[in-house]
Amino acid sequence: MLTEVSKNMCFGGWQKVFSHESSELGCSMRFAVYLPPQSESGPRPALFYLSGLTCTEQNFITKAGAQQYAAKHGLIVVAPDTSPRGIGVPGEDDSYDLGTGAGFYVDATREPWAKNYRMHSYITKELMKLVLENFPVKPGAIGITGHSMGGHGALICALRNPGLYRSVSAFSPICNPSACPWGQKAFTAYFGESASADWEAHDATKLAAGYAGPELELLIDQGEADEFLGKGQLLPERLVNACSGNARLKTRLRMQKDYDHSYFFIASFIGDHIEHHAKALLA
Amino acid sequence: MLTEVSKNMCFGGWQKVFSHESSELGCSMRFAVYLPPQSESGPRPALFYLSGLTCTEQNFITKAGAQQYAAKHGLIVVAPDTSPRGIGVPGEDDSYDLGTGAGFYVDATREPWAKNYRMHSYITKELMKLVLENFPVKPGAIGITGHSMGGHGALICALRNPGLYRSVSAFSPICNPSACPWGQKAFTAYFGESASADWEAHDATKLAAGYAGPELELLIDQGEADEFLGKGQLLPERLVNACSGNARLKTRLRMQKDYDHSYFFIASFIGDHIEHHAKALLA
Repeated sequence: MLTEVSKNMCFGGWQKVFSHESSELGCSMRFAVYLPPQSESGPRPALFYLSGLTCTEQNFITKAGAQQYAAKHGLIVVAPDTSPRGIGVPGEDDSYDLGTGAGFYVDATREPWAKNYRMHSYITKELMKLVLENFPVKPGAIGITGHSMGGHGALICALRNPGLYRSVSAFSPICNPSACPWGQKAFTAYFGESASADWEAHDATKLAAGYAGPELELLIDQGEADEFLGKGQLLPERLVNACSGNARLKTRLRMQKDYDHSYFFIASFIGDHIEHHAKALLA
Repeated sequence: MLTEVSKNMCFGGWQKVFSHESSELGCSMRFAVYLPPQSESGPRPALFYLSGLTCTEQNFITKAGAQQYAAKHGLIVVAPDTSPRGIGVPGEDDSYDLGTGAGFYVDATREPWAKNYRMHSYITKELMKLVLENFPVKPGAIGITGHSMGGHGALICALRNPGLYRSVSAFSPICNPSACPWGQKAFTAYFGESASADWEAHDATKLAAGYAGPELELLIDQGEADEFLGKGQLLPERLVNACSGNARLKTRLRMQKDYDHSYFFIASFIGDHIEHHAKALLA
């Protein structure tokens, strides 16, 4: 049951926002869908975009300028929210990097988060099913990308669910959350104090070594002037190293001079990412 | 004296925001400047973009996706704020369409607004001078555009100051403010109760008839699904009629099916507008 919250014509297609009651998360959730002009005449590939810390479904659709390229290549683009909303878990609104706006695309196993903070199942199962049932998506032609926490999300969704996404890319992703302050804080809360199998199972760098699914080429853009790169939150070189030992994973890490962590950076390269996905999904 | 508030690399150029003390407005003001890659090697044309009601200098630079096209054509893009800020005029924060965020690009003549609400002189004189002195702008190669209240602003800046702007365009402009609720409310406050010479001198439809400057081609995009069109706030047909009687003014009004008043609309056509200005300014 989807409720249309808004719709705006954009580059000849419709940028829509819907709300629905999520059974995984136990709350009402919003997500955005861009329907390119080509989707009126038949099924099209779909690209999921996962946002970073503090974001809602709005940031990407208002700031990234992706609709232009989605319209050019005929891709449906789905942009979910970043956590359950208004659950009332104690402390969920205390900091920007844990709880509300910071679901980290994992299924928490530890109280008080375990019941509702199930963003991994929400993205890969519940929302996937909803999207396939309600929009003209070409079966099997699904890609995933994201930014920062959402880049981490895109990587682990692809690496944990071989074959579910045919293409993957990321902007300034948190590549090794077990080894950075953001990831350690979130994983401690969601999975428990010390590094465990749960930590490894939601860390792209750890997952890359053991990935045994279909071949994937990971396109990653990273700004060299990104303050969080300097603070050791992102660690892209560790993911590249891990992938270099796995013939099924090719990485194309592009270090972008002078670019930072903002949507000005994403806007500058989202065209390349959508082309990367279109090539794989339209092949 | 400019203070750099922020800078972000975007499409190979720099999106910057500055603050300065405005003598016209009597307060600290912010404005945004996009410097395309080409501006590093010599003077470039500049395009001013005036925003609509409630906006700051941020809306356009984060939502319109203009940097891509400015980088392509090598245009500097200047995006000012929409009113003085924090002046303390009684009532300036009471409604979204008068006072703060709603300067209407006029110099008010009526108290309590007259001292500070001088956005027309700010845009056409003070900020113009600041921009010419501080950025590599090609002399004489200046265009102006805007949205809604800012579309009105772009039109009256061009029509009241013949030769100052070599190109002009607008998105869903308030074309005949003397005859619509938004304009009547603002003009009553800023100029006085009954329609007067001041009203006529800041109304594009009135100004078009008497314009005697260099030839201008007005590119205007208007969404057909724009709620404010239906409410009689915009009245583009009146401007087209007025221009049809003046050989110096050509209008190209494009009614865009299904598009509304939002930045999704602006983003879809800003590329065409920047091309329109680039043609005139690079000629």
